[in-house]
Amino acid sequence: MPSTLAIGIDIGGTKVAAGVVDEHGVVLEERRCSTPGSDPRAVEETIVELVRDLGQRHEIASVGIGAAGWMDLSGGTVLFSPHLAWRNEPLRENLERLLCRPVRLTNDADAAAWAEWRFGSGRDESRLVCITLGTGIGGAMVMDGRIERGRFGVAGEFGHQIIMPGGYRCECGNRGCWEQYASGNALGREARELARANSPVAQEILRAVDGDADLITGAIITDLARAGDAASIELIEDVGSWLGLGMANLAAALDPGMFVIGGGLCEAGELLLEPARRAFGRNLTGRGFRPAAAIALAELGPSAGLIGAADLSRSASGS
Amino acid sequence: MPSTLAIGIDIGGTKVAAGVVDEHGVVLEERRCSTPGSDPRAVEETIVELVRDLGQRHEIASVGIGAAGWMDLSGGTVLFSPHLAWRNEPLRENLERLLCRPVRLTNDADAAAWAEWRFGSGRDESRLVCITLGTGIGGAMVMDGRIERGRFGVAGEFGHQIIMPGGYRCECGNRGCWEQYASGNALGREARELARANSPVAQEILRAVDGDADLITGAIITDLARAGDAASIELIEDVGSWLGLGMANLAAALDPGMFVIGGGLCEAGELLLEPARRAFGRNLTGRGFRPAAAIALAELGPSAGLIGAADLSRSASGS
Repeated sequence: MPSTLAIGIDIGGTKVAAGVVDEHGVVLEERRCSTPGSDPRAVEETIVELVRDLGQRHEIASVGIGAAGWMDLSGGTVLFSPHLAWRNEPLRENLERLLCRPVRLTNDADAAAWAEWRFGSGRDESRLVCITLGTGIGGAMVMDGRIERGRFGVAGEFGHQIIMPGGYRCECGNRGCWEQYASGNALGREARELARANSPVAQEILRAVDGDADLITGAIITDLARAGDAASIELIEDVGSWLGLGMANLAAALDPGMFVIGGGLCEAGELLLEPARRAFGRNLTGRGFRPAAAIALAELGPSAGLIGAADLSRSASGS
Repeated sequence: MPSTLAIGIDIGGTKVAAGVVDEHGVVLEERRCSTPGSDPRAVEETIVELVRDLGQRHEIASVGIGAAGWMDLSGGTVLFSPHLAWRNEPLRENLERLLCRPVRLTNDADAAAWAEWRFGSGRDESRLVCITLGTGIGGAMVMDGRIERGRFGVAGEFGHQIIMPGGYRCECGNRGCWEQYASGNALGREARELARANSPVAQEILRAVDGDADLITGAIITDLARAGDAASIELIEDVGSWLGLGMANLAAALDPGMFVIGGGLCEAGELLLEPARRAFGRNLTGRGFRPAAAIALAELGPSAGLIGAADLSRSASGS
């Protein structure tokens, strides 16, 4: 019987995750490493090494890549990446040459959304919006069982809606993008600012990093909040409120049936979701006179992207 | 031969327009009147009178209504209208009883977008976003030849994306909605504020209303700008800049191939569109690394809504 196993690789701004995935979306083996700097060649070498290693222990039918960049509509070229060094990078061609096999290339947020629609929280929802809170905000839509990629392939960049003209500078070149207010990076920045002000409420946070505010990350704040630190809980509440406001904007435009929220920041669970739901309800235009979208946590955790990339590589599904 | 003529009626926040439309989108006869106050019954009576009058001179096959409100997915009930008094109003049922015939009910912006996709600037565009600048902002999407209405029927309310948290109050109950910055109403408000400050630059504007700032409207400012008044041109530039920023947000999320801009404010033509294009280009995330949507003026003018409503009434097309 031919193999139905696929390798999925998720290339994010800070981490690369690779896994062997079966046709039910189950991950049989997974490997993770840091994204190797900003050199496109080094990223390609990492991918090749991961595929070779996993391929030694599993018979693989196909390879799918989800990458934190904007693909052209053909899915061959990474047009731009706010968090990585790709600029008009023919990533699919490069990888097919290096791996000597076809590769399906997808935006990482599209891949994660596909996984949640196929196997996770968003199963069977006809109008699904997925939001992945990591370094920035990944966004994707699955509509009537298809990933909606827009006219040129770059739809779903919700994190770059400007919600605060003149606000914080974004890597994309604008100011005031949503992801500068509602992401793991935003949480870290706010916490560092609080700590550097040597605020009395930030003492627990500073203790956790031996007094070095530069070491504070969103992940550290999430851990502290879950352990009960009041300042960290407030910082996550602030991020959650911005998350809810941006979702209300998306609901005005898209009217989805469900939002699925994934990504590393979701480790905060209800500490993040409760203020997000509250702000969503308070900012939803027409509230009280319309049905409102459900808001759910992603089910598949940090493996969603590689599961979706693997599943998409099996066929022309999802496009 | 059976008639292929349809009556289309467009019910806006201030005006009702009715017309007899043939299968090519040509308007054979048109009537306009003011929206009769805020009483839903009075609006219904106006519609009935217009249909009876036009029906005396034309053999009509179907009737379509485009209304400035949010329809449920079945197209029977107006859930909510920011600018009119409908709240869970069974408008289709009421009109079918009064007119003794089936009625197709659509959101007014959806109807106008449909007309532009069928007969106007947006013909054959696979990812079309239409923006109608009137009392507020009407929005609609035509994707792969279908009006995209979302999960509950209320997608496309782009005017209520919050682009300025804590900003101007909107009739929808929020603050800082896009339509408070980029609409005919916004233009009028800004101009009245300038005039009330008795600014020396506002003297032409004040002369046009015999010194009574309360009488200033967006339409008056548009006329003055076209006649060369510098302050009015600047006021329209400001509105155009906000228009472009909001379109850049929509492009981040939706990645359309074309924006079609319609509504009364389009009388300003390039005085509005040039600054809108500039702000769009400046705020488009990933600019320089992605194809950008075209921006075009609507072709069908103020009749787009009734043409689309009429065309949609012919069949189940567009949904």
